[in-house]
Amino acid sequence: MTEAREGILWDYVTGRRALPAVLDLLGWRFLNAEPGRVSASCLGKPEFYNPGGFVQGGILAAMLDGAMGAAAVSLLEEGETVTTLDMNLSFMRSVRDVKLIAEGRVVQRGGSVVFMDGTLTLEDGSLVATATATGRVVRLADAANREE
Amino acid sequence: MTEAREGILWDYVTGRRALPAVLDLLGWRFLNAEPGRVSASCLGKPEFYNPGGFVQGGILAAMLDGAMGAAAVSLLEEGETVTTLDMNLSFMRSVRDVKLIAEGRVVQRGGSVVFMDGTLTLEDGSLVATATATGRVVRLADAANREE
Repeated sequence: MTEAREGILWDYVTGRRALPAVLDLLGWRFLNAEPGRVSASCLGKPEFYNPGGFVQGGILAAMLDGAMGAAAVSLLEEGETVTTLDMNLSFMRSVRDVKLIAEGRVVQRGGSVVFMDGTLTLEDGSLVATATATGRVVRLADAANREE
Repeated sequence: MTEAREGILWDYVTGRRALPAVLDLLGWRFLNAEPGRVSASCLGKPEFYNPGGFVQGGILAAMLDGAMGAAAVSLLEEGETVTTLDMNLSFMRSVRDVKLIAEGRVVQRGGSVVFMDGTLTLEDGSLVATATATGRVVRLADAANREE
């Protein structure tokens, strides 16, 4: 299902470039990638559990952030990246020890602003969480300048 | 600075109960805990990095979720927990390989709904991210019923 294309995202999808560390941590496997839309599977590992014994909401946010960020990166030029400015999340159900499907989509891209949304579901399609996010397109060199 | 009190949160704070796995993952150390307000330090580890080489936004969300959740839990009865319903985040700066201070606060608690906010800062106080969240108070047994 994945289109063969040039660009950073497809370097990750095809394994020409090693996955970013945070995606490895989440048990990330690309399922589909096309310009502006990416899906992947993640794992609700025990190391992500909150006191109630479920995958913590922030970790579900990390899965959604990964999918929305990848969708944004699929539209970028070499040397550009996206910094998330805000992210809004709704959590529909608690999960543990299960495979999750994260899908991210670019709703609109302006000059330097990208609007994204995402869904996190079980393999049967039931909703676990949804998100929207706003990102800013920056040159990789400028991103470093935002650092502490 | 931490008040000695009975309850689940103080079992974690004092080490009478092992930290939840997700807090261990985040390098969590309690700094202060009082009813309705909790702060802790976390670590921006390399395993949390996004493709740009910074701590991913979702992981910053996990730190804020941990602090806000702990603030909520500080007000609960034994056998109750809080499920996060929604969380809204703003990201002010990119960070890597640094200690972060997460502070969570209960803004208001109704019967079964808790409104929270939180800040994530560097040790010098500069803002990294802010969040608000809404939680639902549930009995631990009912939380299990929400699971897939």
